[in-house]
Amino acid sequence: MRIVLDAMGSDNYPVPDVAGAVLAAREWGDEIILVGREEIIRQELARHDVAGLKLEVVHAPEVIEMDDEPAWAARAKKNSSMHVGLGLVRDGQADGYVTAGNTGGVLAVATLHTLRRIRGVKRPALAAIMPLPAGHVIALDIGANADCRPEYLLQFALMGDVYARAVLGCTRPRVALLSNGEEPGKGNTLVKETYKLLTNSGLNFIGNVEPKELVTCHADVVVSDGFTGNIFIKTTEATARMLTDLIRDAIKASPLTAVGGLLAKPAFRRVARRVDPFEVGGGPLLGVNGVVIVAHGRSNERAIKNAIGQARKAVQGKIVEAIRDGLAKGQR
Amino acid sequence: MRIVLDAMGSDNYPVPDVAGAVLAAREWGDEIILVGREEIIRQELARHDVAGLKLEVVHAPEVIEMDDEPAWAARAKKNSSMHVGLGLVRDGQADGYVTAGNTGGVLAVATLHTLRRIRGVKRPALAAIMPLPAGHVIALDIGANADCRPEYLLQFALMGDVYARAVLGCTRPRVALLSNGEEPGKGNTLVKETYKLLTNSGLNFIGNVEPKELVTCHADVVVSDGFTGNIFIKTTEATARMLTDLIRDAIKASPLTAVGGLLAKPAFRRVARRVDPFEVGGGPLLGVNGVVIVAHGRSNERAIKNAIGQARKAVQGKIVEAIRDGLAKGQR
Repeated sequence: MRIVLDAMGSDNYPVPDVAGAVLAAREWGDEIILVGREEIIRQELARHDVAGLKLEVVHAPEVIEMDDEPAWAARAKKNSSMHVGLGLVRDGQADGYVTAGNTGGVLAVATLHTLRRIRGVKRPALAAIMPLPAGHVIALDIGANADCRPEYLLQFALMGDVYARAVLGCTRPRVALLSNGEEPGKGNTLVKETYKLLTNSGLNFIGNVEPKELVTCHADVVVSDGFTGNIFIKTTEATARMLTDLIRDAIKASPLTAVGGLLAKPAFRRVARRVDPFEVGGGPLLGVNGVVIVAHGRSNERAIKNAIGQARKAVQGKIVEAIRDGLAKGQR
Repeated sequence: MRIVLDAMGSDNYPVPDVAGAVLAAREWGDEIILVGREEIIRQELARHDVAGLKLEVVHAPEVIEMDDEPAWAARAKKNSSMHVGLGLVRDGQADGYVTAGNTGGVLAVATLHTLRRIRGVKRPALAAIMPLPAGHVIALDIGANADCRPEYLLQFALMGDVYARAVLGCTRPRVALLSNGEEPGKGNTLVKETYKLLTNSGLNFIGNVEPKELVTCHADVVVSDGFTGNIFIKTTEATARMLTDLIRDAIKASPLTAVGGLLAKPAFRRVARRVDPFEVGGGPLLGVNGVVIVAHGRSNERAIKNAIGQARKAVQGKIVEAIRDGLAKGQR
């Protein structure tokens, strides 16, 4: 298997990106193709022991930066690490692509300039794999489409179902709609219309779920428009960060609680690891002709390694072919 | 001041409701009018020491239950504690109304059957007062209007601004739009259109905020449609609950961490109190002709007492008159 990694992706590129690639190459023995400014990548690689690892470097002179306007950058920087890297996947020279770069940028380059949509896909969707207490849940769309129509959400559900089967190993994924109440009549117009489509979709549709289902999630796939899904995911992250900051500060505030905090540290670590998005690494962009995993800009080397792991699973699950087949069936 | 409390409101009515009313009457010396099934309320009151407290009981034979369909119940149960209680406010016999009952029910009874909208208000909005580390923030709409138009959100902003001035004591409230990105072009169509209206509104509009601003909130008023706002608020609650459950379980899992947890308990308590929605008690329904505070169904007596406290502040801030004036100015 050959996975392309955008070496110019993360907020601190190329340091965590290259380090994550080295970890992945060592762990799985696959070939990792690092794409970006060759000189910088080689300098960074020189700091690692890469003996015996299958690491290749492909030069791309331009970088789509985090603060670049995505649509503009996708048009203007045709020699970016995203264009070159996704081009390798398009041309069959690699099996999957991973980036921690500008999310809007990779969406635009993948959808409009390189891989393009799978035939029949109305809108590709960005998904997050959420590490919840009850297991992994795929939430989509979390940011590719701010304005959606019910037919898009139906397709998101179909693609999520396929991903849950092919990659998460669910035999009959439970598909739910993110809503402001569980009853069938709840939701905004988009949710209510989508509810009807999902009821007749042949999917294992279990109805609406509220955010409180996070705790005891009975769904494997949670569907929403990209605006709501983005707010949802970002709110879980923000609340978790706020709460852990408050707890840390409160524990430090007195010597006694500080000792308690020290003793309880292994427990905190266990929890942190369990809900850490870096353990998952990244989420797939579904609906394009190739495996694309988008990681967080703040990714460290562990997150990058795990994002490469997600790409491996998606390639092994033949996700692109599975979505093609799934859509063909769903549209019968 | 006379505040009406729906004695048949909370999930465990009338126990926490009556106990909260007793606490409030004792703390502030105001008159509390308990509305609901008189016999049950009097039985419950008999379990408290109410000597010298100004507690009155007004009978209402019907109850809008939590699982009643709101619009139906508002039409069918004309003698409910909500109709009778809000009727007292409408008729000038009380200054404000508090309930922990069926949210959709109180919205319908207040808006369509008793208080009705303030002239010029397109849609009343339900607000939450969020106890964030940087201070209290008013978020609205959090559930009254699942589908919104930009003009509604503009009015939510105006009403939030008025509330922040009159009740939270902000001199020049910073108004923000909840969005999936900070840049002006981010958001769905509703957010983008609202952005333009707010830019020209004369309000202190600071632009879009993402959920991560929860941690370091620079806004006093956060505006959204009722669907997004509901998901936002419920996701903060769900994430906080999930995380505290995980931490509790992890700490209990070994004797050493359990000791640590015991020593650190005062710190946990401090944090819990700081972010506890029960410390705020409830959020106002803005845009109707009267003070209405809606509390959580799971409210305990402390939450009910604090919700009554919110009603007091709204009455003292003359919020209804302030919104009338504010809208008149905003529409010039």
